Formats: sequence, structure tokens, C-alpha cells
Amino acid sequence: MDQSLTDNLHESVTFPDGLALDCGRQLRRLTVAYRTYGHLNAARSNAIMICHALTGDQYVAETNPETGKPGWWERLVGPGRPVDTNKFFVICSNVLGGCMGTTGPRSPHDEDPEALWGTDFPTITINDMVRAQKRLVEHLGITKLFAVIGGSMGGMQVLAWATMYPDCVFAAVPVAAAAYHSAQNIAFHEIGRQAIAADPSFHGGRYWAEGVSPERGLAVARMTAHITYVSEAALTRKFGRKLQDAATLSELGDRFAVESYLEYQGSSFVRRFDANSYLTITRAMDLFDLAAPHEGRLADAFAGSKTRFLLVSFSSDWLFPTAQSRAIAWALNAVAANVSFMEVKSDKGHDAFLLDEPDFHRSLSGFIAGCAEHAGL
Amino acid sequence: MDQSLTDNLHESVTFPDGLALDCGRQLRRLTVAYRTYGHLNAARSNAIMICHALTGDQYVAETNPETGKPGWWERLVGPGRPVDTNKFFVICSNVLGGCMGTTGPRSPHDEDPEALWGTDFPTITINDMVRAQKRLVEHLGITKLFAVIGGSMGGMQVLAWATMYPDCVFAAVPVAAAAYHSAQNIAFHEIGRQAIAADPSFHGGRYWAEGVSPERGLAVARMTAHITYVSEAALTRKFGRKLQDAATLSELGDRFAVESYLEYQGSSFVRRFDANSYLTITRAMDLFDLAAPHEGRLADAFAGSKTRFLLVSFSSDWLFPTAQSRAIAWALNAVAANVSFMEVKSDKGHDAFLLDEPDFHRSLSGFIAGCAEHAGL
Repeated sequence: MDQSLTDNLHESVTFPDGLALDCGRQLRRLTVAYRTYGHLNAARSNAIMICHALTGDQYVAETNPETGKPGWWERLVGPGRPVDTNKFFVICSNVLGGCMGTTGPRSPHDEDPEALWGTDFPTITINDMVRAQKRLVEHLGITKLFAVIGGSMGGMQVLAWATMYPDCVFAAVPVAAAAYHSAQNIAFHEIGRQAIAADPSFHGGRYWAEGVSPERGLAVARMTAHITYVSEAALTRKFGRKLQDAATLSELGDRFAVESYLEYQGSSFVRRFDANSYLTITRAMDLFDLAAPHEGRLADAFAGSKTRFLLVSFSSDWLFPTAQSRAIAWALNAVAANVSFMEVKSDKGHDAFLLDEPDFHRSLSGFIAGCAEHAGL
Repeated sequence: MDQSLTDNLHESVTFPDGLALDCGRQLRRLTVAYRTYGHLNAARSNAIMICHALTGDQYVAETNPETGKPGWWERLVGPGRPVDTNKFFVICSNVLGGCMGTTGPRSPHDEDPEALWGTDFPTITINDMVRAQKRLVEHLGITKLFAVIGGSMGGMQVLAWATMYPDCVFAAVPVAAAAYHSAQNIAFHEIGRQAIAADPSFHGGRYWAEGVSPERGLAVARMTAHITYVSEAALTRKFGRKLQDAATLSELGDRFAVESYLEYQGSSFVRRFDANSYLTITRAMDLFDLAAPHEGRLADAFAGSKTRFLLVSFSSDWLFPTAQSRAIAWALNAVAANVSFMEVKSDKGHDAFLLDEPDFHRSLSGFIAGCAEHAGL
């Protein structure tokens, strides 16, 4: 049985008119699972949307009911935190294509409600994810968001918000993000997809019908991705060439500590994530290319934008390197947009956006305070 | 059937007294497959040993009989080339643990000649590989090598030669190498090993007994490794975000060109390489740490060395970055060894050591010419 994922009921809203997708297909029914924190003010002007990364979820600032772990951005979001829930109304939803309650490959198939979507789930884009979020925001009675904030794939969503709905976003904070997915990033995703497809339990994506799950393939995918999330310096500091159980390595069976760690990362992941969601969401990231509809001119994507931007990168991030954030800053400058850009010195790699990085947190606090003043909050 | 590997007879020599290994075990019988080019002079002083990388072989300067492809270093080794076979006697052997004729997991088991070693093959080290090469060199009647040259894992072998048998090596050229395998490199290898182990055709390493081969797992391993061999710039130049078959991507089935390329890399690899060899050799690389026997003092490994070194790194190599070659140069300087070090400006990544890099080739020619003069050749 597919025991790796529970079917906890998540707070959600269903839109019976569905959602039109970039690929040309139409979801007949759309459910968006979400959490909110704090209170919406009378003017409905203090809402902040937080966008999660590839394997994140809506439990940004509270214990995750599936894993029992703290919210993934509790350092940043909560009472008295940089995103202060005493002052702001914070919304975080599970992305379209996800597996924590929002419509995705684990949802009932439009054509056959007895079956699940599985790999029949349509190809989606980052823009589609944001369209689903927009429906949620409207449902909550909000016309304009004070801010949209997110890291990694969450940062891609922030950029999609700012370009699709510029008048609905007062401030935007894409962290450790990029305006397109690079060939190297696509290649790493493809390794993961190949590993999943190679797992005999994948059954061409219909593993749910067989009561199994391609856990080993998904674990390899997660391990591969995990290496890209950390810097070489961080891996070296944490593990170096330390052995897991012995002082000297004598047989193939012995393990370096970094190997056990990776295996743990892989095996814990499969208990909380659906393989078809992983395929769907990594593909959405690969497809992301803000400049494509503008014949490669990124600046055109932001033409006329009145949104205030804070771009943040981390110096040791080699998955979404500083150069990619800088390219966004240049594009914003080219259209005279309001943009701040900071590269945080950190040796923690891409994962730094989730970790304790005081410079990042201070800058975000300052940026939000400044924007709040301008917004009259 | 294991149709992926042929059983061509390779030129080889067998040592019936076997080989004592670092792990404490003894191979009862050692076969070393090798090729030579050019002629040994009367003084037996013009021999150059070329050491191959992880998936290389002994066919350094001639068409590979298994793949029909040109020798892997024909740019560097041949008549009139930087390693001039009109002048030097060049030796290249398949490494211990390999699958091109030298004793390895595909060889008959010591305890049961009807069976193959498979995963029972002992853990080996880079030093063990060099011990096997030393036996070959002695067999050829050579006491001292004029030079040992190799890239990547071949460079590790060069370093092992220079530290184990310093008086037998006049000149040493480790290219794109390192004095130890980093945590990140171990992690990438572990992904590959996990992918192989996850393949149901692996059968705990006894796939040969089942007449199958863990091709999908091995392909994922190869694809992962391949990404680490190229720079982001090279991937972007070659593929960018180009689609394989269509102008626009509409369904999950559509492919980015980089994905098709990776899949080709994976599928062509499994036809020429044995999964157990891959496990054995990657582990040998992980275990490599020249400074370990000297309580971390790398310089001590080279104390008293009279060998002339040329260290070469490539600026965009992120698998064996310049910093690692520089650390070797510092260690050699610390013991007043004769060392030249050059970082070649290249955007081709680790793979540059196999590609057309005129600066590298010119430097190697010059270094060899200078050493030949000093050696009276």
C-alpha cells in the first residue's frame, strides 16, 4: 500500500469552475489548500502571500501535521518576526500540482473520479500555480497584496505574480531565484525524473493503482537535488571525509557520513512527497522563462511595473547563483523599476534561504518596514 | 542476457602470484590488460605511463575495439603529438577493478572460478591500481618511468605513483586532479551507487548470474556524473533551453535537448561499462586521500621528492576545482619540489582535460621537452 503519504484533511477551498491552464487544457475543478496567519485589516491591505519551494507546503509558520516538524519558514514568519503576523495577514497555499491538498496528480481524475490523475495530470507552469493562488486571494476578498515573498521556486512564483498581476502586488521579494531555469538545473531535474521512471514500482506513473510507490527512485531524485541545495563548503564542514561508523574504511559496505546523510534525506522525503507531484512540479520549474514571451528581453516583462522589489541571493548558491538575481535587477533597472538587490555572504549554498541568515532577515525586515510606510500601513 | 559488454580478448599479462591489496586481502591472480605505442629505447629510459579516468580504458591512442571510437587521448598521444610516440614508449593499462581485461568484478572469482567476482570483489584503492601498473612496468623491463600522466582519476594515479614510487618517476603530470575526494564528490558518486542498487536488475550485484544488467540504474549514475563533468556555461552554450523536437513545450512528454543528450550519454555508457566495476572504481576514488597517512599534512607525502611536476587545472572545473590543484602545488613547494602549475582558462568544465585545449597541450609539450632535456633523452 501507498503508506508513505497520509490523507490528512487540509483546510482548502474548491472552485467548481476549475482553471484554464497554459497548456490549453482546462481543469474542471480546482481545490487550493492553504493556511493563514494573523488578521486581515478592515482595508484588506495588509495581506502577504508566501510562496513555497519545490517540496514545500502551506505550513509555513506552524507545525506540519504530516511530519510533525516546525513550519518551514518559522524563522521569518510569525509574531514579531520579519514577516510579522501581529501586523500582517499571511497566506500560504500548497501549489497547483502539489500533494498537500491542492489539486495535483493525487487528486481525482477529471474524466474518472474513481481514479487519480497520476501522470495524466496536465503539464502546468509556474504561471498556472500563480493563477490558482490568485483565485484564492480573490476568494479571501483581497484585491491587492501588500507583498509576495518566496525563495527558490517560491521566488519564481513571486516573479510570476509581479509580471502577471503587477497592479495586485505592492512589494515583491524573490529570494534565491532566477528568471529562467538553466540547462544545468534542467539536467539535474532530469536525473531525478529518470531515477523515478526507472523504479519498477513506478508502473508508468500508475503506482497508486498498484498500491505501491517508487520510493527508491524518488529517494535518488531527492538525494541528487539535495546536493545541489548545499555548497561544497557546507558539505565539507558538515561531513568532510568522516566515516559513519568506523575510523577506517575497509570494505565497500562501510559508509562515509555524507552518504548516510543523503540516504536519510532520500528516505525521509518519500514518506511525505508524491512522485507524480515531483515530476509535475520539476517540469513546471524547467518551463519557467520570464523573457520567452518577450523574445528574450527580460526587461519587457517588467515594463511599467510600480511594484517595489527586493532581490536576495546567496554568495555560495550554485543552483540559483547571484548572477541570475543580478540579471533580474538589471532588467528592473532598465525599466526604471524600484529595486533593491543584495547578495548575502553565506557558505550554506541554496539552502541558505531557509536557514539562519541574520543579514537576510534584517534586510527583509527593513524592506517590509519601508514598504509598509509607503503603503500607509 | 548481459549483451551490453562483449568479451573481446584484450592484450594482457597475468601474474600468477596475484596482488596484496590495501584492504588486507590478496588477489590470487592478477591480469593487467594494456596497450603500448612507440618503441622502448635501448636504455629503457623513454617510457611514459598514461593513467585513465573512471570510465576510460587502455585504448588511449587508437580506435577502441569495443566502441569503434577514436582513442580517448589521441589529441595528446601519438606520432608528433605532445606525447610523441615517435620518441617515447607509451604504456596505458586498464585499471584494477575495470572491465576491459584487467582483473575486476567481471573476472573469475578466486574462490570459485565458475563464478564471477561481482560485488565480492575486494575494496580497492587508487594505490592498489598503481601497484598493478607497477607490476606491468616491471614486466616490461622498465625500472624508471620517464613520465606518468593522467587526468581526473588518472591524475590521482599519477599522484599515487609519485608518492609510492618517487624514485621510479622522473616527471609527473596530474591533470584536473585532487589530493583527496571531497564530500561533494563522494555525494555525487553515492547518488550513482544508490541508483544502481535501486535497479531491480542489480540483484544485489549478482546480475551476471541472472543474465541481466542494471542498465537503467547505471544510466542514471552516468547521467549524474556527466553533469559534474561539464560546466554550466558549456551546458548552456550547447543546449540552453532548446527543445529537442518542437518549438514550444506543451506536454510532459516533450523534451529539452539537454535531457535527450543526457539520456544518450546514459544509454551508450551501459553498453560499454560494467555496473560492479563502476561501484568498485568510484569507491576507490572516494577513498583517495594522500594526506591521510601523514595526519593530514599533504606536504609530507612528497617529502624528498625529486620528481618534476606539472599540475594543470581548468578554470571552470567544479568537480576538481583549481583550488585543489593549487593545494597540491603548495604542498610541493613546501618540500622544495620541482613544480609548475597552470590553470587553463576554459569554460568546458572538468571534461576540458579530454578536449581541444591548445594552452594545455602547448604547456604539456613544453614541459615534456624540458624534462627530456634534463633526462638526457
